[in-house]
Amino acid sequence: MSLLIRSSYLSQSHFQPRYSKPSSHTNQTPSKLVFLSSFNHNPLVSLVSKRNPTMQPPTFTPSMTVKSSLIDPDGGELVELVVPETEIKLKKKESEAMPKVELTKIDLEWVHVISEGWASPLKGFMREEEYLQSLHFNSLSVEIYKHNKEERIARTWGTTSTGLPYVEEHITPSGNWLIGGDLEVFQPIKYNDGLDHYRLSPKQLRKEFDNRQADAVFAFQLRNPVHNGHALLMNDTRKRLLEMGYKNPILLLHPLGGFTKADDVPLDVRMEQHSKVLEDGVLDPETTIVSIFPSPMHYAGPTEVQWHAKARINAGANFYIVGRDPAGMGHPTEKRDLYDPDHGKKVLSMAPGLEKLNILPFRVAAYDTVEKKMAFFDPFRAKEFLFISGTKMRTYARTGENPPDGFMCPSGWNVLVKYYESLQEGDDSSKQQQTVVSA
Amino acid sequence: MSLLIRSSYLSQSHFQPRYSKPSSHTNQTPSKLVFLSSFNHNPLVSLVSKRNPTMQPPTFTPSMTVKSSLIDPDGGELVELVVPETEIKLKKKESEAMPKVELTKIDLEWVHVISEGWASPLKGFMREEEYLQSLHFNSLSVEIYKHNKEERIARTWGTTSTGLPYVEEHITPSGNWLIGGDLEVFQPIKYNDGLDHYRLSPKQLRKEFDNRQADAVFAFQLRNPVHNGHALLMNDTRKRLLEMGYKNPILLLHPLGGFTKADDVPLDVRMEQHSKVLEDGVLDPETTIVSIFPSPMHYAGPTEVQWHAKARINAGANFYIVGRDPAGMGHPTEKRDLYDPDHGKKVLSMAPGLEKLNILPFRVAAYDTVEKKMAFFDPFRAKEFLFISGTKMRTYARTGENPPDGFMCPSGWNVLVKYYESLQEGDDSSKQQQTVVSA
Repeated sequence: MSLLIRSSYLSQSHFQPRYSKPSSHTNQTPSKLVFLSSFNHNPLVSLVSKRNPTMQPPTFTPSMTVKSSLIDPDGGELVELVVPETEIKLKKKESEAMPKVELTKIDLEWVHVISEGWASPLKGFMREEEYLQSLHFNSLSVEIYKHNKEERIARTWGTTSTGLPYVEEHITPSGNWLIGGDLEVFQPIKYNDGLDHYRLSPKQLRKEFDNRQADAVFAFQLRNPVHNGHALLMNDTRKRLLEMGYKNPILLLHPLGGFTKADDVPLDVRMEQHSKVLEDGVLDPETTIVSIFPSPMHYAGPTEVQWHAKARINAGANFYIVGRDPAGMGHPTEKRDLYDPDHGKKVLSMAPGLEKLNILPFRVAAYDTVEKKMAFFDPFRAKEFLFISGTKMRTYARTGENPPDGFMCPSGWNVLVKYYESLQEGDDSSKQQQTVVSA
Repeated sequence: MSLLIRSSYLSQSHFQPRYSKPSSHTNQTPSKLVFLSSFNHNPLVSLVSKRNPTMQPPTFTPSMTVKSSLIDPDGGELVELVVPETEIKLKKKESEAMPKVELTKIDLEWVHVISEGWASPLKGFMREEEYLQSLHFNSLSVEIYKHNKEERIARTWGTTSTGLPYVEEHITPSGNWLIGGDLEVFQPIKYNDGLDHYRLSPKQLRKEFDNRQADAVFAFQLRNPVHNGHALLMNDTRKRLLEMGYKNPILLLHPLGGFTKADDVPLDVRMEQHSKVLEDGVLDPETTIVSIFPSPMHYAGPTEVQWHAKARINAGANFYIVGRDPAGMGHPTEKRDLYDPDHGKKVLSMAPGLEKLNILPFRVAAYDTVEKKMAFFDPFRAKEFLFISGTKMRTYARTGENPPDGFMCPSGWNVLVKYYESLQEGDDSSKQQQTVVSA
């Protein structure tokens, strides 16, 4: 039952629910634990200990058949940890006698990620041995073990600066002990936010790629609205894949749906914007699947991008588009990028365990002021190009100023404008909108 | 000529000489560089660029034959970067036209380490690609690249706290650019401190093991005086190896000889103490080789211990004794160990690239107050054992108090007492002794 992943690409330090050291009257290393979510769905998640050899291992349902045209999931078999219907009654009864721990919202996002197999072959929260591998080799028994926050933060983010969003919201306030162990999940994670139909599991995505008879799948990870520069890149990639001899390359447009920092555009707004981009034909609906990647965001740059790429292998992607400074952000206290913008791309191309994934570096797109459209940057006429950063884009939308024609399809732009208008209207009151901002 | 080491055990972030960004009138990516040492020997070290394809690769002398009884060096062949006598004249002439950079003392220690093949298959200072692998996969072209000190420190030490000895002495004061590239060394590194005869290269050690017809080599890394608990452990290990069927296990007693923090016992004192331990027969001279490991000390715990173990493979050791909290220290600003004391041992046993090395965990030895000797700790009569830490040992020696009988051989203890006496005598003056302390 013990799991040991020797490959080194699993992103560092995900997958630990927060936990306070058990008080003396509880068993310090319980043989079974149940996570009780503090979020709105209370999914029961049981944790099977290797200390109790009489326990049944968690039941997996390797019911899917991976078609030969799709890349194999890591470990060869897609992990699925949702308990089959027929066993739920028994498992729930079993779980009643177990100690329970509370899950926060972010814990639940990780349960979601793990239970659907995005982190295959991981079957649960990291035990100490896997945690050490993650800290020291960047890769990945039930144990309760110490949570040295300083070391975890330093090795994951390469800084201990204040102002790291995931750290400040989810690590600093957490407890001094971590729990690892295999998961069994009684029901698929749902958020009931009107977007669940977008949350395809790796298994569902693979099925969809097969239905469309994809012979190549190229993934585009994003947490921003899609402008025409992005679209140019994705369409150009498809063209290149066709030139390489692929008959039916399918684009997985895969926005991140878990925790993001407060000033990122919230998920529901982004999904509406992405819909418009497809409705307007900027991306071809026939060859594009839009789906939500349920992972929370760490903003851990070259460390996190390995997790992002690896999860897409598990969903069937064999090509991955990587941009400048993926998963990066500005240094929270200094006037510079937190990471070297080229490191993410370079690390991906060398990362052990990602050899079977084809990394497609971003070509730089910018606004061509002569052609009045987004185009690949031409250094020989550099002065005719205008670079519009995410920050600049948000400033345009916030101030009601229009970006140059051809930057984004008008209906998509309208979604952003409306969102920022709604923020200003609700500045003094609306708790609901505050929730939207930080969702 | 480009070197890419995919294995992940090479310790992080060693091997960069400090460098200030070249001024605009020099070539920013020179095809050849020469390091000029600021230390007392000025060895000329040339750096051959892969940007200049007409350059000859550095010449190695794989003259040694590895006997089948010794473990293979990493990469199969021991790297040696000292230029053969016959080529020195030509190489020196060549180097005259090259740009030169100054080497600090610590740089020279790394040149020493690399040139003798301790870091095989590394042939020079890390290029950017190797540096990224080291930062992100803990593993290892001429480039000059940015030195993001914060990220390097955070990922290597798992903290950015003030008070890290190597950081404060050798990283913080260094430049914002790093140079990587292959080395050629015109003469073996010598320190002329009366201890050079102890500084056997991996090749010399392998030859010595062969001379003694060793069929197993077990290495003991240390930077402290040897007390009888250490000796018990080493002698017990030899016994266990004999029981396993080895006919002639040889102990490599391998004190670290490069940079150590100011309050560690200096190298010359330790070497004198070690001599006494062998003279007194606490360790058997017939089956022990005492030699200096020229590496500087990082105090980077579970990260550094991988480097320590790996270098000993290159010297022919196939067993490695690892203690509590190897290469660790107290947290510089908090009252706790900087690293979990068990992590070093756990990481070593899992580290990719160290599979062929047998890790022998330390058995805990303490002073048995009944038997009046150092003995393996027996938890069933815990109260009868006295733990004497390194700090406590130094306090005894400093205050002139004798440790309990049987803690250390008297002649060895005397060396320490004399050293601390000399410190007190010289407190107000003796520049020479200050130098000894920080050596």
